[in-house]
Amino acid sequence: MSQTQRQLRLGAIIQGVSGNMSAWRHPDAVADASINVDYVIELARRAERAKIDFLFVADGLYITPQSIPHFLNRFEPITLLSALALVTRNIGLVATLSTSYSEPFTVARQFASLDHLSGGRGGWNVVTSPLEGSAKNFSRATHPEHDERYRVASEYLRVVTGLWDSWEKDAFVRNKASGEFFAADKLHTLNHKGQYFSVQGPLNVGRSPQGRPVIFQAGASEAGKAFAAEAADAIYTRHSSLEQARAFREDVRRRLEARGRNADDIRVFQGISVIIGDTPEEAERRYQQTAELVTIDKALEYLGRYFEHHDFSQYALDEPFPEIGELGENSFRSTTDNIKRYARERGLTLRQVALEEATPRPSFIGTAAAVAEGLAQWFLEGAADGFIVRGGTPTAFDDFVDQVIPLLQARGLYRQEYEGETLRENLGLAEPENQFAQRRQQVA
Amino acid sequence: MSQTQRQLRLGAIIQGVSGNMSAWRHPDAVADASINVDYVIELARRAERAKIDFLFVADGLYITPQSIPHFLNRFEPITLLSALALVTRNIGLVATLSTSYSEPFTVARQFASLDHLSGGRGGWNVVTSPLEGSAKNFSRATHPEHDERYRVASEYLRVVTGLWDSWEKDAFVRNKASGEFFAADKLHTLNHKGQYFSVQGPLNVGRSPQGRPVIFQAGASEAGKAFAAEAADAIYTRHSSLEQARAFREDVRRRLEARGRNADDIRVFQGISVIIGDTPEEAERRYQQTAELVTIDKALEYLGRYFEHHDFSQYALDEPFPEIGELGENSFRSTTDNIKRYARERGLTLRQVALEEATPRPSFIGTAAAVAEGLAQWFLEGAADGFIVRGGTPTAFDDFVDQVIPLLQARGLYRQEYEGETLRENLGLAEPENQFAQRRQQVA
Repeated sequence: MSQTQRQLRLGAIIQGVSGNMSAWRHPDAVADASINVDYVIELARRAERAKIDFLFVADGLYITPQSIPHFLNRFEPITLLSALALVTRNIGLVATLSTSYSEPFTVARQFASLDHLSGGRGGWNVVTSPLEGSAKNFSRATHPEHDERYRVASEYLRVVTGLWDSWEKDAFVRNKASGEFFAADKLHTLNHKGQYFSVQGPLNVGRSPQGRPVIFQAGASEAGKAFAAEAADAIYTRHSSLEQARAFREDVRRRLEARGRNADDIRVFQGISVIIGDTPEEAERRYQQTAELVTIDKALEYLGRYFEHHDFSQYALDEPFPEIGELGENSFRSTTDNIKRYARERGLTLRQVALEEATPRPSFIGTAAAVAEGLAQWFLEGAADGFIVRGGTPTAFDDFVDQVIPLLQARGLYRQEYEGETLRENLGLAEPENQFAQRRQQVA
Repeated sequence: MSQTQRQLRLGAIIQGVSGNMSAWRHPDAVADASINVDYVIELARRAERAKIDFLFVADGLYITPQSIPHFLNRFEPITLLSALALVTRNIGLVATLSTSYSEPFTVARQFASLDHLSGGRGGWNVVTSPLEGSAKNFSRATHPEHDERYRVASEYLRVVTGLWDSWEKDAFVRNKASGEFFAADKLHTLNHKGQYFSVQGPLNVGRSPQGRPVIFQAGASEAGKAFAAEAADAIYTRHSSLEQARAFREDVRRRLEARGRNADDIRVFQGISVIIGDTPEEAERRYQQTAELVTIDKALEYLGRYFEHHDFSQYALDEPFPEIGELGENSFRSTTDNIKRYARERGLTLRQVALEEATPRPSFIGTAAAVAEGLAQWFLEGAADGFIVRGGTPTAFDDFVDQVIPLLQARGLYRQEYEGETLRENLGLAEPENQFAQRRQQVA
C-alpha cells in the first residue's frame, strides 16, 4: 500500500446507551451508561486501543420529563473529558459547548486548560443551542433567533481564538537567575469590543499545546455552513446518501476556498450509526430487536423534541404527517426541514415518521466486510474525510472496533498507530499561527 | 486514645510553586508548577497518601502583566479537579468558582458532574470575585459592588442547591421490563424567579453522590460571614493569632445557631503556611532564602493587586504607609482593611508592609514537633476545625506531609485511614436532605 494514501479518520460518540431512546431496555445495555464513570472509562480505553482519533460528547441545556432518558442524567462534557484526559494518552477529547449561554472568557479558559491537561488533545464542538427552552434555564426572556445565534457564535469564536493567542508559545521563559518569568513582548491583550462581547484579556492560561483546540461545527443550515467555512477545523454532519454527503463536502470545501482558506484545512465527518452481524440477517435481527423497544408514545415524544416540544399525540397516527407550519425553524432547523420534506416526498404517516426518527435504520448495517466496504467507498469517493461512529445497538460499537477497524487497517485506509501527540497532528491539521505574533513579525 | 476524640481536618492548596510570588526562582522549585500536569498529579497523590481531606484550588478572573507569576498561566479549577478525579480515590476536590461571572445552571451541572465523576468528592469554594478588572473580561460595564455581590451569591446558591435537588436519590429506577426510566414523583422542577436569576430546571444531572457537593466560603467581611452562616458547610479563613481565630470561629458558630442551624454543621478552616526545619534555625534560614527572592518592585506590585492594581511605586518607600482613602473596599475588603489597620498600629513603612505582604512569615515555622504542637493547640483550643495548608517554601509541603502529619496521627488527632467514601463523610458532615422530598414527605 502507498505511504501517501489519504487516511480515513474516526471519532466515537459518548452518549450513554447506544441505539435509540429506549435501547437502555435492551438486555445487553448498561442502563445507567450516561452517568456511569466505569462504563465511560472502559469505552474511552477501548476506543483508544482501536486508534480512534477522538471521543465526541454531544450536549443540551434543557430537558423535560419527555426528554430521551440519557439526556436526563448525564455527565457535563467539559468535566467528563477533563476526567478522561488523565486515564487516556492519545485519543482526542471533543466536547460540545454552546455559544448562546456561556461566557467566552470562561470557555476559552476551560478548553485551553483541557488542552494542557491532555497534552494537546482537546476539541470544541461549537453549537448555538437548538432548544428554545434553554433560555428558561439561563435567566433569558427569549431564545435568540437562529441566524442571530450564528452572528453571536461568529463573534464569540473570534474572541475565544483571540484569547487563545494571548501568549506566544515561548512566552514563559522562567529564568530563575534573571527573575524574568515571561517575555513581555510575547503577551498580547485582546481588547475586543464588538456587537455582543467586550473582552479585554489576556487569558490566564498559556498557549495550549495544539496552538488552539480543534474547532468542530455541527450545524447544517446556511448560517452553520458559513460559520464552519469561516472558523472550523472539522464538521460533524449527517447525510443519508453518498451523493448528498459528497455534494455537502464539496460545498464546504468550495466555501473555504471562497474565504481564502485551503479546502484541505477542514475535515468533514459524517455521523453514522452501525450494526454488525455475522450475516446480513443477523445484523437485521439486531436492528429489529432494538427498534422494537421503542413504543409509539415514546417515538412521538422524541419527534416532538425537534419541534420545540410539540405534542404530536394530538394527531391521528395513520394519517399523513400533519401540516405544522414553521414549527421547528428556530431550533433544529436543518433536521426539521428534512423531516417535513421526506414525509411529504415519501407520503409517510405520522406513525412512520415518528418510528423512523426514534429508531432510524443505521447508516451502515450488515457484515463487518460490507460495512468496511461501505465506509471505504464513501471515503474514497469524496463523501467524507471520516466518520463519527455510534452503535446502532448497545454493543454494536464493540463489534465495530473489533471487526470493522481491522478491515480498514488491512486496506491501508486507517492507522495502525497514532501518528502524533496531539489531536491536530492525528487529524493532519496544521497548528494555527498566533495572530499577534504574525503581525509582530510582519512589522519587524 | 479515645475513639471519640474530635478529629482535625486538613486541606492542601494547589497553586503552583509554594512560598511567595518569587518562589519559582528557588533552586528547588518546579518553575512551571501551575501548568505542569505531572507535578499536580504527584502533589495530589502525595496528599492522598497522607490521608488529607481535600485539595483546594483558588482562582481569579483577571490578570495584568504585574500579576503573580503563577496566576498568569494556570489550570482552570473545574477542569483540573475533574482530571484529578480519576487518578485519585479518596481525596476531596474543592474548586473555587465565582458567582459574579457565571451561570448557576452551568455551575450546578459542572459541580454535580464532578461529584459523580469522583464518587462524591466534589466541593465548591463560593467566591464573588474581588478583582474589579474581572468585569472587563465578561462584557460588563462595571464590577458589582461588594454587598451586592453577596446578595447575588445568596440567590445564586439557592438556585444551585435547588437544581441539585431536581432529582431524588432513588429517582432513576431504570426498570427494563416496564420501561420506567425514572419515578415521575421524584423529579422536581425548580421554577426559580428571583431578583437576579430566573431558572426553570430541572438539572440534567441526577442527584450527586454526596447529596450535594461541599460548600466552602472564603470571604471574611460581614456580608461574607452572613453568607457562610446561611449556606456554607465550611469556611476558609486566615487569622494571625489563636485568639482572633477562636473569636472568629465562635462568631461563625453563633451565627449558625442564630439562623437555626447547628453550630457543628460547619467546619472552620484556617489557611496557613508552614516551614519545617530540623532545628528552628534551619526553618528560619529556609524562610529567609525564599523571602530574599522577592525584590521590592515585585512586592509593591503584589501589594497593589489588593488595592485595585494601585501603583504604590509613586510613594516614598521608607516613609509611613501612605494614606490611600477607600481604595480596596470594593475588592479584597477584609484584606485591605487589615493592611491599613496593622500598618497604622505598628507604624510600618511602605517597604515593610510591601515585603510583609509579599513574603509573609509563615503561620507555623519551626521543627516538625513545634509545628504539630502549634496546630494541635489551635485545634484543641477551638481556633479551628482544621487547616488548609500551603508550603512556605517550594518543598515545605512535602516536609509537612512526611514529618508533621505522623505526629498529629500519633496524638490521635488525625486519621490513619479515610473513614468514608465521600468528602462529606470524611469531614463528618451530614448529607443534606432534598428540599422537595422533605416537603413531599411532610404533605404525605
